[in-house]
Amino acid sequence: MADKTVKIGLLGCGTVGRGLVELIGKNRALILERSGVDLKISKVLVRDLKKERPGVDRSLLTLNPDDVLKNGCDLIVELIGGINPAKQFISEAIELKKSVVTANKALLALTGTDLFRAAAAKGVRLGFEASVCGGIPIIRALQSGLVGNHIGELTGILNGTCNYILTQMTELGWTFEQALKEAQAKGFAEADPTLDVDGQDAAQKIEILAELAFGVKVAPGAVKVEGIRHISDEDIRSAKELGFVIKHIAVAHDLGKTLDVRVHPVLLPTYHPLATVRHENNAVLVKGDAVGEMLFYGKGAGAAPTASAVLSDIIDISVNDRHIHFPDSPDKPVSADPRSKYYLRFPVLDVPGVIGLIATALGNRGISISHAAATLAKDKPGCGNVKILAHSCPESALRKSIEEISRLPVLNGRPVVLRILEENS
Amino acid sequence: MADKTVKIGLLGCGTVGRGLVELIGKNRALILERSGVDLKISKVLVRDLKKERPGVDRSLLTLNPDDVLKNGCDLIVELIGGINPAKQFISEAIELKKSVVTANKALLALTGTDLFRAAAAKGVRLGFEASVCGGIPIIRALQSGLVGNHIGELTGILNGTCNYILTQMTELGWTFEQALKEAQAKGFAEADPTLDVDGQDAAQKIEILAELAFGVKVAPGAVKVEGIRHISDEDIRSAKELGFVIKHIAVAHDLGKTLDVRVHPVLLPTYHPLATVRHENNAVLVKGDAVGEMLFYGKGAGAAPTASAVLSDIIDISVNDRHIHFPDSPDKPVSADPRSKYYLRFPVLDVPGVIGLIATALGNRGISISHAAATLAKDKPGCGNVKILAHSCPESALRKSIEEISRLPVLNGRPVVLRILEENS
Repeated sequence: MADKTVKIGLLGCGTVGRGLVELIGKNRALILERSGVDLKISKVLVRDLKKERPGVDRSLLTLNPDDVLKNGCDLIVELIGGINPAKQFISEAIELKKSVVTANKALLALTGTDLFRAAAAKGVRLGFEASVCGGIPIIRALQSGLVGNHIGELTGILNGTCNYILTQMTELGWTFEQALKEAQAKGFAEADPTLDVDGQDAAQKIEILAELAFGVKVAPGAVKVEGIRHISDEDIRSAKELGFVIKHIAVAHDLGKTLDVRVHPVLLPTYHPLATVRHENNAVLVKGDAVGEMLFYGKGAGAAPTASAVLSDIIDISVNDRHIHFPDSPDKPVSADPRSKYYLRFPVLDVPGVIGLIATALGNRGISISHAAATLAKDKPGCGNVKILAHSCPESALRKSIEEISRLPVLNGRPVVLRILEENS
Repeated sequence: MADKTVKIGLLGCGTVGRGLVELIGKNRALILERSGVDLKISKVLVRDLKKERPGVDRSLLTLNPDDVLKNGCDLIVELIGGINPAKQFISEAIELKKSVVTANKALLALTGTDLFRAAAAKGVRLGFEASVCGGIPIIRALQSGLVGNHIGELTGILNGTCNYILTQMTELGWTFEQALKEAQAKGFAEADPTLDVDGQDAAQKIEILAELAFGVKVAPGAVKVEGIRHISDEDIRSAKELGFVIKHIAVAHDLGKTLDVRVHPVLLPTYHPLATVRHENNAVLVKGDAVGEMLFYGKGAGAAPTASAVLSDIIDISVNDRHIHFPDSPDKPVSADPRSKYYLRFPVLDVPGVIGLIATALGNRGISISHAAATLAKDKPGCGNVKILAHSCPESALRKSIEEISRLPVLNGRPVVLRILEENS
């Protein structure tokens, strides 16, 4: 029945590792029927042999990496995470001419190119579907399904924690702190939520996607990153009144000579395809010159979806003897001064002429506005907010205007600056 | 630079064929850079050498199939459509041990299994990404990205013409006839729209998807098919008032011992992921046991998106020396009596007690209702409509009730019966 047995060496047995063991246990016959490949977990590297791991056969556990890397495993799955020792283990496996499957986005964002080059040199493969957007087969879509397309633009909701928090703030009127607490209670956010809510997680993902889609290298640290800690319920409400919803997105544009790669909160019009992506879901919108606009939507994290992605790489590597091709990806600098539309909120003292002062400061830098409104703060007598929608302008011009406006005596707090993304903007 | 040159023999040079020639011309360098494969169109079979085909090199054209099938082409692309001679050409190419890429959904729905078996026997591949949903890489997602998942359910908007017509009826208040005319003028509908608006096109697509997702054979003709000709603006409006939108969908459920595979219009709640799929777009919602719910959305037809899908198969076949595995797909019967919720509209004479008569007839068959309302027809004095939302019930019970109600003297026209699909229904 089986055309081929594949012995898997598993490095790490945390949430995703156990999810993989469980999924293979559950669907092994189905996978065999579909692909002709019989999967066996052969060895599992752990740090503590005594820890409870329901469903994992204790006799497979080892504390010695060589038991996994050297002893008869056909393919190595790295689910340790972090940079070291994951990098050493992957390099060693490649050196031993074994293909590797990894979910390690931090490592790939940092040093993916070197690992891919090493794998190509040894004629083995490095599968990384699980590193971005969990179970959504977006890597496969870019590498294979859309291989004939020039891709100019990628926009994604890549961090489930941020999207869950913003959904709760928007739909239930919660504050950021309330929503974060709930996300932690539900397991969508870590005890230390920094990587998620400050945008680093999404930045690593968009870097991987941009390199793949555009065939370039993005210099580490080149992605501009903003998180969602500063989003207030005031801004959520204002956005809603203006026909927008606030989402945390990652954007990558190929501008020809430069790239524009950013992660930040944004106002999306309610009709935008990403506006309806709710809760902890992820989505990626891709624009290809042949296929047009395409959306991939689903669960971006969690043990089972991530294990599903790992498994898809294992089977792909097992059934396809791929001609290894390592494209020569040039470095591409990030655009110095990308343009955007903006939503601006200025906490102000409620005195006559304040809209005029702010609008003039923007106008002096060539920034046109389409909407300006002043509202009174309910809880602070004599105070209010000026809210502005600005037409597309260079980031540098906006930054200078904001600095200037911040020095005005009528200003009463830190301005809030959020980009607006419209379809085909 | 090129690791490999692949000479393509093209059968047929209509809209998609020319789209493929154009796309390869435009993105050949990009594809080479990404995959190491240099693509060349080597021969093109046409029926008329003199027809204008802008962008296609006349010296490649031939009237003789053997020039394409036998003379030095590495891979055959079939874009003739229809059953014969497409089937003969594909069989002959397989016999000659050449892999084939096709967009021919009618042929695959009719006799795909035989062709796949023949290809497996000869150790070659039959790529068919382009046969369903144009540029959306849904075949790849099911075959590879979700290979580790047991898939229980697929729901799709698979026909762009129907979706365009229903979008115009819903958003602009057009009649079916107006919307169809506009679709024809815009090139979204054929001069003879039968295959699209009566559901056969979607039926062929869901058959291919169901066979792939569930690993079964669906007997030809087993798919229950309804089109959208009977959808009136009255029903579109009623649906909207009740919080629904009418869409034409294809559904495949694996019920264990039987399948439920159907194509028909349906009322979707406005929050349903497929409810926001507008215009000529396609979308497929897949439920996998590991990944959960996943949506793929994009352009389902057109020369460039379809050519993109053909190209993805060409590259996949060119770079992967795949271990050919032919799963043994059992026949699975279609469920005799699937359950559903329903929206019912009965044209009636405006007489007292009519809701009671209809509700009683439904109740007598065990069908509960959640909503019943009578409205007067604006244009026909003394006439009206009774609109009912029925809880989930077996199709057979509903059919009998409808027959009974149709014989009531108060009935004044043909009842309209539309299924309601709720999320997780």
